[in-house]
Amino acid sequence: MADQQRDYTTIPTPPACYADFCLVPVGTASVSVAKEVAEVQKVLAASGLKYTLHSAGTTVEGPWDQVMKVIGQAHSIVHQTGAVRVQTSMRVGTRTDKKQTAEEKVKRVQDLLASSLD
Amino acid sequence: MADQQRDYTTIPTPPACYADFCLVPVGTASVSVAKEVAEVQKVLAASGLKYTLHSAGTTVEGPWDQVMKVIGQAHSIVHQTGAVRVQTSMRVGTRTDKKQTAEEKVKRVQDLLASSLD
Amino acid sequence: MADQQRDYTTIPTPPACYADFCLVPVGTASVSVAKEVAEVQKVLAASGLKYTLHSAGTTVEGPWDQVMKVIGQAHSIVHQTGAVRVQTSMRVGTRTDKKQTAEEKVKRVQDLLASSLD
Amino acid sequence: MADQQRDYTTIPTPPACYADFCLVPVGTASVSVAKEVAEVQKVLAASGLKYTLHSAGTTVEGPWDQVMKVIGQAHSIVHQTGAVRVQTSMRVGTRTDKKQTAEEKVKRVQDLLASSLD
Repeated sequence: MADQQRDYTTIPTPPACYADFCLVPVGTASVSVAKEVAEVQKVLAASGLKYTLHSAGTTVEGPWDQVMKVIGQAHSIVHQTGAVRVQTSMRVGTRTDKKQTAEEKVKRVQDLLASSLD
Repeated sequence: MADQQRDYTTIPTPPACYADFCLVPVGTASVSVAKEVAEVQKVLAASGLKYTLHSAGTTVEGPWDQVMKVIGQAHSIVHQTGAVRVQTSMRVGTRTDKKQTAEEKVKRVQDLLASSLD
Repeated sequence: MADQQRDYTTIPTPPACYADFCLVPVGTASVSVAKEVAEVQKVLAASGLKYTLHSAGTTVEGPWDQVMKVIGQAHSIVHQTGAVRVQTSMRVGTRTDKKQTAEEKVKRVQDLLASSLD
Repeated sequence: MADQQRDYTTIPTPPACYADFCLVPVGTASVSVAKEVAEVQKVLAASGLKYTLHSAGTTVEGPWDQVMKVIGQAHSIVHQTGAVRVQTSMRVGTRTDKKQTAEEKVKRVQDLLASSLD
């Protein structure tokens, strides 16, 4: 099969994605993670990427490599605050048909809900 | 060990939790999932539970059993729209020290960020 | 719309699902979570449901309500070991076309990989 | 605060991590995702990283940047098979105290379970 000859190592990563993540430090005596979340927000701000904080995580948008880099930096900075283990839950989406920002996605659903009440 | 005698089947589920979930229909020709998301919102509204829509999912709060029931109902209703497979990514949190709503969590981080700028 | 009249509260939860979950205690001084994971395995064993442990989580299969009940019980038992907060990352799947066990899913992919080497 | 002067853009990503991920193509007519999973396995094999397939996802281990690169390449190759949208659920862990492979983690829990039966 031609497929066998393909060089899979040269496949590019996606030019755009969104990642919604929730990072948890493990093995720190404190119950509150708000301090760590605040540190992570600073890393995000420094990245120049667009991001939104919500109650169950943070959504960040941009090129795949940059988005994943900043989440990796977030792990590193939380380790620097003393956490020996850091665990992140993430959902990531990519699409090839169009760019759709976080706001546009929310608006699309709200419009559908509004129209179904007619 | 005393532990071995314990009846693990009678352990109660948590009285309160939050669940942040993102449901995806698989094997439907349409790329847009906004219609399915809108159906899910109706199930949530009927549940009487508190919920918030954001761009990467929905956060719902309440007793464990009720929260999980409504997410299960969401799967069922998306199956009824024609999706043969439904996949959900979820993060769930419980705590025993205090109740903290979704809004309070966001505010706590925003306050920390504001104070660190002083 | 007829849709508006529908009673969304009576929709049943799915008769079968799988849930792959990873539970993390937050705010405990210990870095290791192996003790908590072992407690969770005992709750799972008591449930009578089929489950498999892997390095990044546990997969449990059965009716939606029973699967979610046992994961809720897992939260409760980890709280009982002293964790004030417990956070779980979960992915859940349901399908209406056929039942497919965890082993069958792995075998299907392995067969595809083997045949693509011909 | 000294903190304010810090250059957050130069923080390195973690030298090691594991990522457990489950990738789902959205908007393809086919219900089966086994073909896409098989393509993803080829991308993983080409990466040289250590990975394990299980019924609810794939666990890959290595330096943060390389692990995230290969998951991004997985998105790209699934787009190339025709999927307009690709959605991944991921959990990622890093630790600074020791390296622990996927097998070691499973063994640790199995040992604890075995010893609790004494």
